[in-house]
Amino acid sequence: MNTKTVFYITGKIIITVSVLMFLPVITAICYNEIHSLLSFLYVIVGGFAVGFVLTFLCRKKDGVLYAKDGFIVVTLAWIASSVLGAMPFVVSGEIPSFTNAFFETVSGFTTTGASILTNVEAMSKSMLFWRSFTHFIGGMGIIVFVMALIPAVSGRSIHILRAEMPGPTVDKIMPKAKDTAKILYLIYIGLAAAEAIMLLFGGMPLFDSLVHTFGTAGTGGFGIKANSIAGYSNFCQWVIAVFMVIFGINFNVFYLLLIKRTVSAFKSSELWTYLGIIAASTGFICLNIYSTYEKFSDLIRDSFFQVSTIISTTGFSTVDFDKWPTFSKALLLLLMVTGACAGSTAGGIKISRVVLLFKIVLNRLKLLLHPRAVCTVKVDKKTVDPDVVSGVTVYAVLYFVCIIAIFLILCIEKSFDIESNLSATLACFNNIGPGLAIVGPTASYAGYSALSKWVLSVAMLMGRLEIFPILLFLSPSAWKKAG
Amino acid sequence: MNTKTVFYITGKIIITVSVLMFLPVITAICYNEIHSLLSFLYVIVGGFAVGFVLTFLCRKKDGVLYAKDGFIVVTLAWIASSVLGAMPFVVSGEIPSFTNAFFETVSGFTTTGASILTNVEAMSKSMLFWRSFTHFIGGMGIIVFVMALIPAVSGRSIHILRAEMPGPTVDKIMPKAKDTAKILYLIYIGLAAAEAIMLLFGGMPLFDSLVHTFGTAGTGGFGIKANSIAGYSNFCQWVIAVFMVIFGINFNVFYLLLIKRTVSAFKSSELWTYLGIIAASTGFICLNIYSTYEKFSDLIRDSFFQVSTIISTTGFSTVDFDKWPTFSKALLLLLMVTGACAGSTAGGIKISRVVLLFKIVLNRLKLLLHPRAVCTVKVDKKTVDPDVVSGVTVYAVLYFVCIIAIFLILCIEKSFDIESNLSATLACFNNIGPGLAIVGPTASYAGYSALSKWVLSVAMLMGRLEIFPILLFLSPSAWKKAG
Repeated sequence: MNTKTVFYITGKIIITVSVLMFLPVITAICYNEIHSLLSFLYVIVGGFAVGFVLTFLCRKKDGVLYAKDGFIVVTLAWIASSVLGAMPFVVSGEIPSFTNAFFETVSGFTTTGASILTNVEAMSKSMLFWRSFTHFIGGMGIIVFVMALIPAVSGRSIHILRAEMPGPTVDKIMPKAKDTAKILYLIYIGLAAAEAIMLLFGGMPLFDSLVHTFGTAGTGGFGIKANSIAGYSNFCQWVIAVFMVIFGINFNVFYLLLIKRTVSAFKSSELWTYLGIIAASTGFICLNIYSTYEKFSDLIRDSFFQVSTIISTTGFSTVDFDKWPTFSKALLLLLMVTGACAGSTAGGIKISRVVLLFKIVLNRLKLLLHPRAVCTVKVDKKTVDPDVVSGVTVYAVLYFVCIIAIFLILCIEKSFDIESNLSATLACFNNIGPGLAIVGPTASYAGYSALSKWVLSVAMLMGRLEIFPILLFLSPSAWKKAG
Repeated sequence: MNTKTVFYITGKIIITVSVLMFLPVITAICYNEIHSLLSFLYVIVGGFAVGFVLTFLCRKKDGVLYAKDGFIVVTLAWIASSVLGAMPFVVSGEIPSFTNAFFETVSGFTTTGASILTNVEAMSKSMLFWRSFTHFIGGMGIIVFVMALIPAVSGRSIHILRAEMPGPTVDKIMPKAKDTAKILYLIYIGLAAAEAIMLLFGGMPLFDSLVHTFGTAGTGGFGIKANSIAGYSNFCQWVIAVFMVIFGINFNVFYLLLIKRTVSAFKSSELWTYLGIIAASTGFICLNIYSTYEKFSDLIRDSFFQVSTIISTTGFSTVDFDKWPTFSKALLLLLMVTGACAGSTAGGIKISRVVLLFKIVLNRLKLLLHPRAVCTVKVDKKTVDPDVVSGVTVYAVLYFVCIIAIFLILCIEKSFDIESNLSATLACFNNIGPGLAIVGPTASYAGYSALSKWVLSVAMLMGRLEIFPILLFLSPSAWKKAG
C-alpha cells in the first residue's frame, strides 16, 4: 500500500469536510443559534488541525496508486468524514451519544436517511442543515467532490472514482477522472437547483426547500418534520416524487442529453427497465390499496411517491406504508433490494446488475438446453465482458451473504421481531432509511442497542461503497506494502 | 425431444407408483379399513390402465436421450406421481379437495412435510401410511427407484439421474447409472431399517416407527400426532434427531464406508462443515434459550432436535420453535436456506454449494487485490471446473429470484403477515415443512388460498428438483423435436 498517498488524500478530505461546515455556520448566524455556531467552529478548527498535520506529514507522495489503494482511500475517507461530521452533534450536545451521532452521520453521508432522532423538530436549524447537507455531499461521493475541486492527487485517480461510484462498470465520461468528476457535479448541482426553485415556487420556505433538495439529490431522505413530507402541498409532494425518480437515473444519461446526443441517451435499457418497474409497482400498489382511498389523485400520488422514495432509496414518506397490506409492503421490500440505476446517487443492487443477472440466468438455461451453443450475455446490443459477468454474480451472492449476516446479528436484540430486523437490514444496507414495523416511516432506530447501531453503520457504509472496499479494508493483505 | 422415450418412462413410473400402493392396501387389511382399501384399489386399477396404455403406445423407443429430455422426464414423472398419489385421498374423501390432496402429495414426494391437515389424528391408518411412504419414495428419487428396479430405459440414463439428484455435481459411484441407483437404494433401505429397529427398541409401536422412519429417511417430516414427535420418549427423540443428521449426509460417504475406504469417506470437507454448522447452531440456540429450561439434558435435546430437523429439511418437531426468541428463529430460517449435504435426501441450497460460493467470493476478493494473479477455486484439494463455478453462482441467484417471486405471490393473501409468508416460502422451497407464525410447527397450511397452495406446490417441486428441470419444463424450446 502507498501509505503516504493514502493518508495525504485522507487529510485533504478532512480539510474539505471542515470547509463545508462553514455552510451550517452561516445557517447558525442567520438563525442566531450561538451555541451551534460555536460547536461548528470548534469542530472546524479541530478538523483543520488534523487535516493539515496529515497532509504535511505525508506531503511526499510515493509512487502509483494501485486498485487496492483506491479501496482503502475510499473507506478511510468515508470513516474519517463520518467521525468528523458527527462531532458537531456531540459537541453541541444535540446528540450527546457518539454512537448515535456517528450512526446519524453515516446515515447522512451514505444517503440512507435512517435516524435515531425521536423528535427531529427539536433540533436547531443549523444542525438540521448540516444533517441534510451530508446527504448532498455523500450522494455524488465525498472523494469525487474533492477530486473535482483540488488538483489531481494521483495520475491514476480513476481507481478511486471506480471504488466510490456505484454500479458494475464506471463510464469514463471524460478521459481524465478529474473532468468526469467536474461534469458529474455540474449536472448534480444543476438538477438540485431546478428542484429547489420548483419547491420555492410551490410555496415551501427557503430553508425547507434547500434541506429537502439535499435529501432528494443525494437520495438520502432526512426530513425536518415528524411526518416527513406529508405536511407539504400536493404540488411539492409531486415535485419531490419526480425528482427522486430523476436522481435515481444514471448520470451518464443526463450527460448525453447535455451534449445533445438525445438518441444515445434514450437507448439505455437500464433507464427503461427502471421507469417500467416504477410504473408497474405504482400500478400494483394502487390496485392493492385503492379501497382505502376516496380520491383517485391521492391514491396515485401516495402510491407513486412511496414507490419512488423506495426504489430511489431516498426514504422520504407521505403516508405510513407500514400500515399498507402485506403485498404492498413486500413489493416495497423488493424495490429496496433492486434500487435504482447504476451511476446515480441511489443505493441497492442497481437495476443494471438486476438486468444483467436475469440475462446471465437465461443464458445458463439456454446452455442447459443446447450444451454446445456459444452464448454471450449482451446488454444494449454490446457483449458484456465475462469478467463483469462473473463480478456481478459474485456481487449478488456477496450481497445476500452480507444481508443475512447483518440480519442475524440484529436478531440478537431481544425484543424486536423478524420483520423489523429484516427491513432494518435492507433499509440500511440499501441506503433507504425507513423500514417496516419498529423502524417504519413514523418510527426511528433509537430503540436499537449500541451494538446494532454500529453494525447498521457498517451496513450503510457497505451498501454505499458496494461491499468490496469495506471487506478489503478489513483484510490484512490489503495493507501490505506493494512489493 | 424424444417424445416416445419420455412418455414410455412416464408410463413405467405410473405403473411403479401404482404397484407401491399395495403397501397401504396391506395396511388397510391389517387395520380393517374397508373404505380406504377400496379407494386404493380403484386408484391402482386406474394407474395400471393409464400406465400400460402409455408404455404400449410409446413402446418403440426412439434414439438417444438428450440432457433436456432428462429434465422433462423428471418433471413429468414427478407431476404424474403426485397426481396419482393424490387420488386415494380424494377418492376416499379423507381430503376431498383435489388442490389440498395434490398439495399434500407433492409435499410428501418432495419430502417437504408441509400439511394442510388440521386434524392429522382423524385420518385412517392406511392413508397415514401412504402419506408417509411418499416421503420414502421421494427421498431417494422416484426415477432412481424405477431405474434400480427395471431394465435400463436408455443408454444415457445418467442424464435422468443427474436431473433428479440434488447437488451441484453427481458422483458416478458406478460406471452404470442403474448400478449407482441400486447401491444408493441399498444404503437407503439399510439405514432406514436400522432406525426402525432402534425406534421399536425404544418402545415405539411398529406402525409409528415405520411411519417415522419413512419421514426421517426421506427427510420429509409428516407425523401422525398433532404434536409431531413431542409425545414420544426422550430415547426415541434422540434416535430420530441423530438419524435426521445421518440422512442429511452425502450418500457417497456411506458408499465409501461400505467398501471400507474409511479415510476417503472422512476427507469430505462438506461433511465436516455440515457437522460443524449443526454443533455451532445447537450451541447458539442453547445460549439463546437456556433461561427457559430447568434440565440441561432437555435444553440440549430440544435445541439439537430442532437444528437437526431444520438443517436436514425434515420438519418433525418436539417444541413449538415459533415461540423461541427472534435470534433462534432467524438462525433456523438461515439453516432452512443452507440445507444439508448434496447427494443426500435433504433440500435447501446444499452445504457444498454454500462452501463453493464462499470460496468463489473469497477468490474474487483476492483477484481485486492482485488483479494479475491466477486464482482457481479448490474443494477437497481438487480444482473445481469453471463450468461448475459459474453454474453454482447462477444457481444461487436463480434460487433467490424464485424465492422472492413466490414470496410476492403469497403476499397477495390479505390476512397473512410477512414473517408467515417468508417462512412458508422458505419452508416449502427448501422442502422443510413447518415455518413460523401462521405456518409454525403447531399450525398448518390449511389457511392459504387455492392459488397460494398451487404456487407452494410448484415451489416444493422446484426445490426438490433444483429449479432447472421445472423452468426448462415450462420453456417451449425444450419441447421442440431434436433436429
